[in-house]
Amino acid sequence: MVEGKINEIHGWAAKQPGIKVEPWSYTPRPLGENDVEIKIEYSGICGSDLHTIKAEWGTAMYPLIVGHEIVGKVITKGEKVTHLEEGDLVGVGAQVYGCLQPDCSPCSRDLDPHCPRSVFTYNSKYADGEQAHGGYANAVRVDSNYAIKLPASLDPVYAPPLMCAGTTVFAPMLRKGVKKGDKVGVVGIGGLGHLAIQYASALGAEVYAFSHSPNKRDQCLELGATHFVDTSNKEEVEGVKRTLNYLFVTSNSQSNQYNEFISWMDFEGQIVLLALPKGQMSFGAGEFIHTEVAITGSLIGGVNVLKKTLEFSAKHNVLPIIERFPMEKVNDALARVDSGQARYRIVLENPQSSNL
Amino acid sequence: MVEGKINEIHGWAAKQPGIKVEPWSYTPRPLGENDVEIKIEYSGICGSDLHTIKAEWGTAMYPLIVGHEIVGKVITKGEKVTHLEEGDLVGVGAQVYGCLQPDCSPCSRDLDPHCPRSVFTYNSKYADGEQAHGGYANAVRVDSNYAIKLPASLDPVYAPPLMCAGTTVFAPMLRKGVKKGDKVGVVGIGGLGHLAIQYASALGAEVYAFSHSPNKRDQCLELGATHFVDTSNKEEVEGVKRTLNYLFVTSNSQSNQYNEFISWMDFEGQIVLLALPKGQMSFGAGEFIHTEVAITGSLIGGVNVLKKTLEFSAKHNVLPIIERFPMEKVNDALARVDSGQARYRIVLENPQSSNL
Repeated sequence: MVEGKINEIHGWAAKQPGIKVEPWSYTPRPLGENDVEIKIEYSGICGSDLHTIKAEWGTAMYPLIVGHEIVGKVITKGEKVTHLEEGDLVGVGAQVYGCLQPDCSPCSRDLDPHCPRSVFTYNSKYADGEQAHGGYANAVRVDSNYAIKLPASLDPVYAPPLMCAGTTVFAPMLRKGVKKGDKVGVVGIGGLGHLAIQYASALGAEVYAFSHSPNKRDQCLELGATHFVDTSNKEEVEGVKRTLNYLFVTSNSQSNQYNEFISWMDFEGQIVLLALPKGQMSFGAGEFIHTEVAITGSLIGGVNVLKKTLEFSAKHNVLPIIERFPMEKVNDALARVDSGQARYRIVLENPQSSNL
Repeated sequence: MVEGKINEIHGWAAKQPGIKVEPWSYTPRPLGENDVEIKIEYSGICGSDLHTIKAEWGTAMYPLIVGHEIVGKVITKGEKVTHLEEGDLVGVGAQVYGCLQPDCSPCSRDLDPHCPRSVFTYNSKYADGEQAHGGYANAVRVDSNYAIKLPASLDPVYAPPLMCAGTTVFAPMLRKGVKKGDKVGVVGIGGLGHLAIQYASALGAEVYAFSHSPNKRDQCLELGATHFVDTSNKEEVEGVKRTLNYLFVTSNSQSNQYNEFISWMDFEGQIVLLALPKGQMSFGAGEFIHTEVAITGSLIGGVNVLKKTLEFSAKHNVLPIIERFPMEKVNDALARVDSGQARYRIVLENPQSSNL
């Protein structure tokens, strides 16, 4: 059995509900024959990290290292790992294990995030009972299938947000076949939304960016939106009635006006929810029946979708707009994300010379 | 210009909110060059008729003859009508006009019920301002495109319910491509539901009939359901979790448990609402995101879908279970539908020897 090189992983853990993390370390579980050990170079901050450490999404297993937008170098690989080599630069997203067996209903259709044996990158447990910890750390061990080799042409500092935010928006575009000429709306111009605009635009769609912040107009157009709709401007909103083939809702605001969203859709249009609003959403049933619009959601991308996300992003230069913080400033970075100031994603960086 | 044969159409009209209709007549609008005049033989009763005359769906244009499941003989045709002959037995559904032009967005994709120029069979107005009246009458004039010739092998007394209930459930099955091996649920075993079971079964699906009336079990199985699920039996309900590819909801009960419905669906399953519940429906957004289930609705079938519905029904012997009432007993029939006693659709019959 191959031994890992790291006996103790040092990171930043939440110990109680809140947005503060503090130095903490854990002994990693033995390196499995299909696992890789990764020295983390970059780790993105996702809104899910904050929901989790604040215990807004149910029980948090404190102490808990979050972070599921991980980029780093493979430093050790289990004996059965053939598709990765030591030194490979890889990305890890929100999932670190899925069975990927052909007789698994979700895995067999690229829906491995729904595999009943899924292990998520943090706040989740492996079958052996060990807790998974995430990327606000110097290293991580994961199933090698979930360590995706980065395309050579992709600058690795931009890769972390693609591992969660990017694939979350690209997965449903891929699955639903967004194509040239489609009219695609994006609600919520933030971490997910600014990537959604770019992906839809690169797929050839006409992109409508919806925001109540008119000061985002220029940036949306630069990112590839063909139209910017200021949702506080009635006239602009009126102009998009019955227009869209797809609407990607990346905002989880409780003030989301779902009946209004439906009114923007062309017949048989599809509304895809990508962010998790609290509580119940409500709709008029008549809206469904009289428009034949569909409302659905999408979680994250599975392994194959992640690979496609990275390839597509590299090929079409779809890159997140990021703010860079050294790892030891993680608390400042979390506060910035929590207050909605980050434009649009934050990437934490470990020192290049860090010892393990 | 061809003159119609009927100067005054005699029927049964609602004159105020309620479920009572009374003899009333109207002078039909001039027979247009694309119109046909139909001597009505049979007229089905649809739940929509009751919602309309009770003014539950907004303003009702009293006096108002409802009925949009019409079967009769063409007795006169406008000069431009080439696809129908006098004497042809035709069916008319809930729509009597759509532009059917290739540059009409809904019409060009077989969604002509959503044509902005649609005229519905009753409680709707033609472009010339004339009010459309329905099938509880001895005759009707409609656009000939919306008079669908019945297949010769179809017993015409069974055809009326296919013109609305039948096509309403078959249209989304056709559009979504329900196929052999799919697992299809039907909620609400009534006028729509008992046809939905038959269509899904004829398409080769495994059909799950859901009802809180266990006494409907045998009939559902006879109609082609492979499984009957008594929704008041927790164990039976538990057995269908994560199973269905499609769920057709034909019940408009306000007690519909949409989150429960979602739990019955396989990943990426589609819930199709066919009945119009009052008020707002609410769902947990997490249910969408964690299952990638879609919720959508469907109205009625357009012209091409109606043709396919009739052909398919004739070929696969999909027939409604009906109760027959003479037209002059229409008030008894309405009371029976209103109290939920009809099994499953009522067809009103004009006397064979009626004079026009």
